[in-house]
Amino acid sequence: MGMIGGGDNAFIGSIHRMAAALSEKIELCAGVFSQDDEKSSNFGLSLGIESGRCYGSYKEMIVKESKLPKKRRIDFVSIVTPNHLHFEIAEFALSYGFHVFCEKPTSLSLNESLKLQQQLKQTELSFAVAHVYTAYPMVIEARNRLANNEIGKINKVVVDYSQGWLSPEYLDTEQKQASWRMSPERAGLSCCMADIGTHAVNIAEFILQQRVDCVLAELTFSNHRPLDDDGSVLLRFRHGAKGILTASQICVGEENNLTIRVYGDKGSIKWQQQTSGTLLLQQAKGPIQILTNGSDYLCDAALALSRTPPGHPQGFIEAFSNLYLLFYKQIVEGDKVDLLPQIEQGVAGLAFIEAVIESNKTGNRWVTLSA
Amino acid sequence: MGMIGGGDNAFIGSIHRMAAALSEKIELCAGVFSQDDEKSSNFGLSLGIESGRCYGSYKEMIVKESKLPKKRRIDFVSIVTPNHLHFEIAEFALSYGFHVFCEKPTSLSLNESLKLQQQLKQTELSFAVAHVYTAYPMVIEARNRLANNEIGKINKVVVDYSQGWLSPEYLDTEQKQASWRMSPERAGLSCCMADIGTHAVNIAEFILQQRVDCVLAELTFSNHRPLDDDGSVLLRFRHGAKGILTASQICVGEENNLTIRVYGDKGSIKWQQQTSGTLLLQQAKGPIQILTNGSDYLCDAALALSRTPPGHPQGFIEAFSNLYLLFYKQIVEGDKVDLLPQIEQGVAGLAFIEAVIESNKTGNRWVTLSA
Amino acid sequence: MGMIGGGDNAFIGSIHRMAAALSEKIELCAGVFSQDDEKSSNFGLSLGIESGRCYGSYKEMIVKESKLPKKRRIDFVSIVTPNHLHFEIAEFALSYGFHVFCEKPTSLSLNESLKLQQQLKQTELSFAVAHVYTAYPMVIEARNRLANNEIGKINKVVVDYSQGWLSPEYLDTEQKQASWRMSPERAGLSCCMADIGTHAVNIAEFILQQRVDCVLAELTFSNHRPLDDDGSVLLRFRHGAKGILTASQICVGEENNLTIRVYGDKGSIKWQQQTSGTLLLQQAKGPIQILTNGSDYLCDAALALSRTPPGHPQGFIEAFSNLYLLFYKQIVEGDKVDLLPQIEQGVAGLAFIEAVIESNKTGNRWVTLSA
Amino acid sequence: MGMIGGGDNAFIGSIHRMAAALSEKIELCAGVFSQDDEKSSNFGLSLGIESGRCYGSYKEMIVKESKLPKKRRIDFVSIVTPNHLHFEIAEFALSYGFHVFCEKPTSLSLNESLKLQQQLKQTELSFAVAHVYTAYPMVIEARNRLANNEIGKINKVVVDYSQGWLSPEYLDTEQKQASWRMSPERAGLSCCMADIGTHAVNIAEFILQQRVDCVLAELTFSNHRPLDDDGSVLLRFRHGAKGILTASQICVGEENNLTIRVYGDKGSIKWQQQTSGTLLLQQAKGPIQILTNGSDYLCDAALALSRTPPGHPQGFIEAFSNLYLLFYKQIVEGDKVDLLPQIEQGVAGLAFIEAVIESNKTGNRWVTLSA
Repeated sequence: MGMIGGGDNAFIGSIHRMAAALSEKIELCAGVFSQDDEKSSNFGLSLGIESGRCYGSYKEMIVKESKLPKKRRIDFVSIVTPNHLHFEIAEFALSYGFHVFCEKPTSLSLNESLKLQQQLKQTELSFAVAHVYTAYPMVIEARNRLANNEIGKINKVVVDYSQGWLSPEYLDTEQKQASWRMSPERAGLSCCMADIGTHAVNIAEFILQQRVDCVLAELTFSNHRPLDDDGSVLLRFRHGAKGILTASQICVGEENNLTIRVYGDKGSIKWQQQTSGTLLLQQAKGPIQILTNGSDYLCDAALALSRTPPGHPQGFIEAFSNLYLLFYKQIVEGDKVDLLPQIEQGVAGLAFIEAVIESNKTGNRWVTLSA
Repeated sequence: MGMIGGGDNAFIGSIHRMAAALSEKIELCAGVFSQDDEKSSNFGLSLGIESGRCYGSYKEMIVKESKLPKKRRIDFVSIVTPNHLHFEIAEFALSYGFHVFCEKPTSLSLNESLKLQQQLKQTELSFAVAHVYTAYPMVIEARNRLANNEIGKINKVVVDYSQGWLSPEYLDTEQKQASWRMSPERAGLSCCMADIGTHAVNIAEFILQQRVDCVLAELTFSNHRPLDDDGSVLLRFRHGAKGILTASQICVGEENNLTIRVYGDKGSIKWQQQTSGTLLLQQAKGPIQILTNGSDYLCDAALALSRTPPGHPQGFIEAFSNLYLLFYKQIVEGDKVDLLPQIEQGVAGLAFIEAVIESNKTGNRWVTLSA
Repeated sequence: MGMIGGGDNAFIGSIHRMAAALSEKIELCAGVFSQDDEKSSNFGLSLGIESGRCYGSYKEMIVKESKLPKKRRIDFVSIVTPNHLHFEIAEFALSYGFHVFCEKPTSLSLNESLKLQQQLKQTELSFAVAHVYTAYPMVIEARNRLANNEIGKINKVVVDYSQGWLSPEYLDTEQKQASWRMSPERAGLSCCMADIGTHAVNIAEFILQQRVDCVLAELTFSNHRPLDDDGSVLLRFRHGAKGILTASQICVGEENNLTIRVYGDKGSIKWQQQTSGTLLLQQAKGPIQILTNGSDYLCDAALALSRTPPGHPQGFIEAFSNLYLLFYKQIVEGDKVDLLPQIEQGVAGLAFIEAVIESNKTGNRWVTLSA
Repeated sequence: MGMIGGGDNAFIGSIHRMAAALSEKIELCAGVFSQDDEKSSNFGLSLGIESGRCYGSYKEMIVKESKLPKKRRIDFVSIVTPNHLHFEIAEFALSYGFHVFCEKPTSLSLNESLKLQQQLKQTELSFAVAHVYTAYPMVIEARNRLANNEIGKINKVVVDYSQGWLSPEYLDTEQKQASWRMSPERAGLSCCMADIGTHAVNIAEFILQQRVDCVLAELTFSNHRPLDDDGSVLLRFRHGAKGILTASQICVGEENNLTIRVYGDKGSIKWQQQTSGTLLLQQAKGPIQILTNGSDYLCDAALALSRTPPGHPQGFIEAFSNLYLLFYKQIVEGDKVDLLPQIEQGVAGLAFIEAVIESNKTGNRWVTLSA
């Protein structure tokens, strides 16, 4: 793998590297980690990349790697830059025949993601989007329980993703993460909805295996910030279920509190990311059941992605590593791997962002997703 | 006290009686428990009421009790009938000089509650509304922490009240509770929003000491029911905070899951009714704090309403009994007891219901509360 | 009921009064609340007892009440004094034909409790011991699940009762509770083991329906205190299960943390007093189940003692009130009420205390209980 | 690194490999994974090891690797075989100049571990023992809080390690893990106490920075098994604190429930492995505090070993990887790394096992640890 972005101090880049390493299948062989040549090179060397493959720009990396013999060159690029570069890098890498593992959102506009989708149709390349939360085994188990009709026809979904780190009072003055996320040029149309709202809607769509049809949104722009840092969205799913989504980065005290509850006419499920190894399942009138990671009664897919026996906690890096394992499987096998978030999820995310922004701008009206 | 309603099998009537008994201040001396004379009388006798004071109608009770010598007659009536009778009984009781403890909603329409408010202004009588959740000590503590500015300027409120007992598939066919709650004649404009949505908005207003200004609501009427059994509401508070409220009686698997989270710019609080003895408090960048019922560090008001030392759980009946203690205090002392929900809260509840219904009817638009 | 002890500031006396009131069956009609005549009388009046029945000594109360016509006099006495008076008052009250509800331990020595047991055999009077924790509905449910063989042959019991309020550094200098509990004259052979260790062993014996056969104990006497404030005890039950019990009143930070876990060869149960409304049940290889108070699937006995529907928390006072309801039932019906802790449990408690003290004194050896 | 043991289906071998990979510092370059040459080789190849370095015996590996040029050869061996081989392999590897990362217990007898300690004194080689639980950041934080005197003089330690997987009824008939663990030849003097009891005592000694002085133990041998599968141990620490330890592998329903609570005269801490990312801290009379993984307020050592920001859960593999990182640091820097469990902890573990076995054999008497 060749990495683009994720230099010193970048949170998500180091997560991707650990996730890839933990996969025991993927090796970091090349990279460009900074726009500054020397910085990039030094950082790459510190990661154990050979000096000739620490590149100065993504174009250089992609072009040069493409000229290496197939056995030696990277198989795919991992894009962990700020949002505004995702699209152009992905497009470029695909055009040179590399598979792509891309941070979300896959582009700044829906249109661009649709272009990527078109481009992909003309190749046999694989494309993964880093929707890490659906790679937790207990989320896969939740999806499976719904597919097996264990909670019946879905009536209501409540998904809540609360963080506090972007709260103006809370923020360290020079926090790099925060600065690009609040820049329309680099983050795009939205901060909170793009960064975490898309995770929230994606996990709901993943578990339900149902797309959201339309949204009614209200966003908050604290202290006249250019982009939203909080919002609430009413959801209607294509098959009739209703939902309510709230996402925030100004909930002081919250760390990374993503919670989803799905209510059907026969029962319900609840999952909380911060206690990711358990899934609550309740069928009508019976006791609440706590399902745990690694247990024999889980579905095959959830069990296959549990690395440890029950009672040995796993977390975020393991989930991320599961994404890389699924992506690896898809590259090797060629066929679509069902559980891997791909360009369709990238497109869905952008459609959601654009609809939410429009609903908020036009007085909190219902807006149907364009894709 | 004289009770009206709450006969055999009625849930809330028996709670009121236990709460009054636990107060150790209030005695049940009279009552009318059924529209059937004999049933009412038999039930009253089974409660230990003397036969002459088991009445056949509320009018009979109020009129006859009013003629007893002051020392012997009841001091107040407790109204625990279905919703449609609250107003006429309250009005009648007040007109005969009795204090009133009334189940919520205080009437079927806002207009009626405003009338009660007018009527009360012309007397020195006390009037309590059964908003039990604000009588939990840890909710009082939460209000106090906000009043002391411990979490700063409030940005966001998330209040969620989920029950499952009215889910069509879940319901026992002949469940009495359910039948009147789904009858517009007896329940009024709303089922879910009136029954539990008003609790949800009331606890938010109580903790913030801030009224909701306007709402945008979407309601659900499962299986073409005449009244709502679920809904989500965007809130704007008068002083600028935003909120999101969801209430449901069709969340299969949920028992009585009322949760409120309030986020300020300095910290946040969380309270869950099902673990009512703890309050989570988090100030920016410090550890989460778990405050517990009965602890020395609580404010005086919370401590005064904690009956047991820390670690000895309390619950719903104790909270209800706290309402009766506050009401008793107000009757005895005459002055407004700050923490007691009164006609103002009754009016606020009806204003909320009417606004929510209107917003839902008119395409999920923002509607300002009329009172 | 006539109360002995429990004057101003006494924790447990007020709990007994609230529990009796909440029963809606029992009325406090007489009492002696202090050794000081005037204090006793004033306190009694403040509770609404008529002045002629506020007595100056327990003997006066028992003698005078016994001369009242049967309809007017108290049916039973409730003994809530320090430990050293339990036996003499109980013996006296029984000799005058009154039923007795007695705080634990029922006497200072095993011998005295055996005497009470003898005395009771010669009457038809009822005698209850205030082992409140077995009156929680979910503890009754646990007992029922074991009786139904849902967790199989019991191998191991872990019971832990940790409090911190007697920690020397933590204690308010003039705390009345603490002073008598550390006095051998008034508390007896033991502080911690008598006060809470007996609860711990009693709840284990109640759930297992099996007596402890022998113990190996190590006690702690912090700061050269005359009585133990902490201890750990290895248990062997008569039918072979092993157990480990630890009780402490110097665990700074603990409130009233009583926890029991029972492991059988087919499954296990866990209950924590501080979250008393839930019981965890796990059968081999299945998910953990959370059973909740008031749910339809509970056994009849547990359901009969649940006052509220699921999700409406109950606690310590409700459990205590359940004891009074069971006691009331026994008095009225005459037959032994299965779930009510009686003199047998009083005897078992003293046998446990004496065995634990002996084991600790003789170098932590195994000691068989004398009764 | 060269691995010895940990072939197909072995739980702990795969954990070590993932942990090493996640360290991003350590590469698996050689190994012997089975006593069957071909199996070993095939498995090694499947892990990506080059064929020439998939060896048929540990002696072959050590000898041959020692002859490779320093740059190419492995730096250390990781021993993940059944217990009976730990000592001989470790001794052999050290004698050839390799650092050793060894599973616990470090040998079958205390004597052997003392020999290893002697051998190590004569070299500058590093030796790590796989006490993974002390490498969780929140356990390091706990140790730090005690070192800073935040909970005062320690009075009591309660440590409980409960698993259910060895319960006879629960066990899959041909479970490989179980078979060697119950073999005295391969597991040594003890099953449960060696396997998990040593973890329990080690985490207590780590947090307190205090050794256990003597023990009083009772062990269980279900169904006449040759080795213990459950036990309870009273502990006395060298500086006076008392403790109670229970460990079991027959607690049906338990997964990997290691819990430690430490009570001082100023406060207490609690940690549960299954919710490893939080640490509860309570100082006298204040609220309970929940400290979370990755938070700014943690000590430097805890923060350095937190890979993700707060709210992004971590677990068992991360903790294991921390051990490898600490070991790597020690190898590179040469000086003793404070937090790394080393031969001293190996010796302490064996001293504990032998004392516990002796206490149990001799009628549950106090036995002082020999080292």
